[in-house]
Amino acid sequence: MKPKKQLESLSVLAQMVLPYQANPAGNVHGGEIMKMMDSTAGVAAQKHSRSNVVTARVEELCFKKPVLVGELVTCKAQVIYAGHSSMEVFVTVESENLHTGRHQIALTAFFTMVALDENSHPREVSPIEFPCDNIYEQKLYLEGQKRYLARRKGHSKKEN
Amino acid sequence: MKPKKQLESLSVLAQMVLPYQANPAGNVHGGEIMKMMDSTAGVAAQKHSRSNVVTARVEELCFKKPVLVGELVTCKAQVIYAGHSSMEVFVTVESENLHTGRHQIALTAFFTMVALDENSHPREVSPIEFPCDNIYEQKLYLEGQKRYLARRKGHSKKEN
Amino acid sequence: MKPKKQLESLSVLAQMVLPYQANPAGNVHGGEIMKMMDSTAGVAAQKHSRSNVVTARVEELCFKKPVLVGELVTCKAQVIYAGHSSMEVFVTVESENLHTGRHQIALTAFFTMVALDENSHPREVSPIEFPCDNIYEQKLYLEGQKRYLARRKGHSKKEN
Amino acid sequence: MKPKKQLESLSVLAQMVLPYQANPAGNVHGGEIMKMMDSTAGVAAQKHSRSNVVTARVEELCFKKPVLVGELVTCKAQVIYAGHSSMEVFVTVESENLHTGRHQIALTAFFTMVALDENSHPREVSPIEFPCDNIYEQKLYLEGQKRYLARRKGHSKKEN
Amino acid sequence: MKPKKQLESLSVLAQMVLPYQANPAGNVHGGEIMKMMDSTAGVAAQKHSRSNVVTARVEELCFKKPVLVGELVTCKAQVIYAGHSSMEVFVTVESENLHTGRHQIALTAFFTMVALDENSHPREVSPIEFPCDNIYEQKLYLEGQKRYLARRKGHSKKEN
Amino acid sequence: MKPKKQLESLSVLAQMVLPYQANPAGNVHGGEIMKMMDSTAGVAAQKHSRSNVVTARVEELCFKKPVLVGELVTCKAQVIYAGHSSMEVFVTVESENLHTGRHQIALTAFFTMVALDENSHPREVSPIEFPCDNIYEQKLYLEGQKRYLARRKGHSKKEN
Repeated sequence: MKPKKQLESLSVLAQMVLPYQANPAGNVHGGEIMKMMDSTAGVAAQKHSRSNVVTARVEELCFKKPVLVGELVTCKAQVIYAGHSSMEVFVTVESENLHTGRHQIALTAFFTMVALDENSHPREVSPIEFPCDNIYEQKLYLEGQKRYLARRKGHSKKEN
Repeated sequence: MKPKKQLESLSVLAQMVLPYQANPAGNVHGGEIMKMMDSTAGVAAQKHSRSNVVTARVEELCFKKPVLVGELVTCKAQVIYAGHSSMEVFVTVESENLHTGRHQIALTAFFTMVALDENSHPREVSPIEFPCDNIYEQKLYLEGQKRYLARRKGHSKKEN
Repeated sequence: MKPKKQLESLSVLAQMVLPYQANPAGNVHGGEIMKMMDSTAGVAAQKHSRSNVVTARVEELCFKKPVLVGELVTCKAQVIYAGHSSMEVFVTVESENLHTGRHQIALTAFFTMVALDENSHPREVSPIEFPCDNIYEQKLYLEGQKRYLARRKGHSKKEN
Repeated sequence: MKPKKQLESLSVLAQMVLPYQANPAGNVHGGEIMKMMDSTAGVAAQKHSRSNVVTARVEELCFKKPVLVGELVTCKAQVIYAGHSSMEVFVTVESENLHTGRHQIALTAFFTMVALDENSHPREVSPIEFPCDNIYEQKLYLEGQKRYLARRKGHSKKEN
Repeated sequence: MKPKKQLESLSVLAQMVLPYQANPAGNVHGGEIMKMMDSTAGVAAQKHSRSNVVTARVEELCFKKPVLVGELVTCKAQVIYAGHSSMEVFVTVESENLHTGRHQIALTAFFTMVALDENSHPREVSPIEFPCDNIYEQKLYLEGQKRYLARRKGHSKKEN
Repeated sequence: MKPKKQLESLSVLAQMVLPYQANPAGNVHGGEIMKMMDSTAGVAAQKHSRSNVVTARVEELCFKKPVLVGELVTCKAQVIYAGHSSMEVFVTVESENLHTGRHQIALTAFFTMVALDENSHPREVSPIEFPCDNIYEQKLYLEGQKRYLARRKGHSKKEN
């Protein structure tokens, strides 16, 4: 299959955080943000594979800054590396205070998504074009590849 | 107050339509999309005014194409004209089929939002810069102004 | 088809506004009320046409009074004019403070709904009986008709 | 306190049942309807007492007919008997198929609500006017009274 | 069919109460808890009958203690008596303050569930083993049986 | 502070998966399960620290088996290692088909939670008792410790 650029799968979901999404302590429920990240990773993987996808794994999901009720939350995802049927997706969440305009990265994570055919079996996906368009994408590609290979090695070990 | 460009308030909310948002006939509940348009208009008005805002009026909200479950819905809004404390906001909704990549404008509407101070009284907002950066924005500005003036005239009539 | 009275399609939805429906400023999210209006317009149009319906257009949706958490919100809709397959629906929202008994009209709007057959194609609906039972309905009928004809004229212009 | 009529507290909540309210078997989740009954009983008790209220007890909640997705559900409640601070509320749920117009009683129940003052302590409420306006209300009044007295007797027994 | 023990159907649902589940007075909406009790009764009845079930009746649902936002709510249900196709289910709700560790019974109720076959007709279920494993279960069994027989007698009376 | 056993923080949340939690492909939305895992990890961390907590990090979240609508999902969490103010929490999700009784581990993950004082600053928490009560807990303790130390080392590196 013909390689695709990372940017082709760039996906953006965004919402204003409403009070019903708060936890009892008054901050935004971490699970609400994780759900939004999962959706955005799913959109990116669907754009790359043009097929149904499922989440297989989440790694290094870091809460860097708290998200507050009333802020605009923008979640971005793009496929940074693709194996046979799996895709490594890098997801970032940015929060913006609409009264001051201040915005900051609130969370980042790596999702692994798997493409499925009509019978819900894994199906082949396009590789990611290499070398990439810039140093930033290049770094993400290599990290995604490393993560992919480490996981495969781990599986092999278990099997032996 | 110093005029602002339309583009400074450009706001984007986006979500993947989930099954729970469907109506009994299986399409997306129109009210779910209207709610999303209201939120996006609110974000644009907050960006322009850097204050709390309320919705005052919705005009010419047109459903052009049905939105289906599983599609990516992206809602864009920008302030196209500003009176003393009210803002005319143009809102568009675009739907995208993630398996084919096909996207189309599904709805458009004009929202009027009012900026509020800490006591929930109307407060002054910046005007929109005129002339605008391009013909498209110019047209929207003039339509917004016409709508604003017609409404003021209507109010005066009633008062006499 | 035999004409029907406006009153035959009168529909009422009502709910107590819960905290989860508030916006970050503490008032009720405008979009929640718009969603409820859309549902009520849909019920009225289904009662008139005894078929599935979709929302085609919303006009002159005016927020007259804010709705507060804890209030009872009652939304009423009735078909005021019918074209071939489209129905003009007048929708009002009344809020009531349950501790004082005070109630007031909070919003009004005109919705255009279209009746659909089993293949989701527009289907004919009964006209509204004219003259109507009282002056109030008569006025709404004529406004609905005017709105309907203006829109048809607009469509024709575009086509020429 | 001056007696009030049952009809003064008559309260109506209504909604169209949406697919997200279904249970895995495809019918409406019983709990969704129970939640709506609780809200309606609360509105009736607030109207009667003009104060905050809490649910104390539910009796004889009977599911008579299944409620289907897409149907209009109308829930009615009225205070039928009042003790010192507690109110017996009779609640009925009616479902209507909007395509055929057929409607039927789907559920009935008796709720006991307690009026609360600002410190969340029980507070006195008006009695229900007796004799009532018609035989139907008369019967409900006597049933409510019997239920109230039986419960008080039960409490006394436990205390001895 | 072979009798089953009460304990075989013991079912536990649990959630942390979030702010969106509060009523306007700031406590947890009674209807939210009733919905959770209905779900748990449904799980217990499904475990006992290994089939689809519907709620037929709720009796003696008592709110003993208020449930507060932020508390852990654990709902337990078990089938205590079974007729031909109906099951008597005893449901308790326990709330726990996670900062102090204090927990208490907040609600109890008796639900009657009916087992359904593929055509949504009542189907036979296993009886509950008698005598039971301990005095507590024994007491519940006899109460459930009494309730079941009283209801049958009531039905017969009406039919005559 | 006095050490606590892992078992003291064992927390269980459980729910029946409803249709509204499905994704467009008909399976359960991964984000819904992640949200439930986050809540359960939060309950365990609150039990251990008897204070407010926030999620700091999620690691090795693996989707092992798909979860289907109608299944009972039980999520368990316990603190397996504690640093100064952070807690390593092991979370498992088990799904059960209520008609067949078959159950299986659907997901596992490691959450890092941080205890907060009244001013939302990190506060000290009890260590986990070592050695643990059994080999299984012992293994989890050592894994949690390794994860904790690796992260601290990573932070130090960045700082140098």
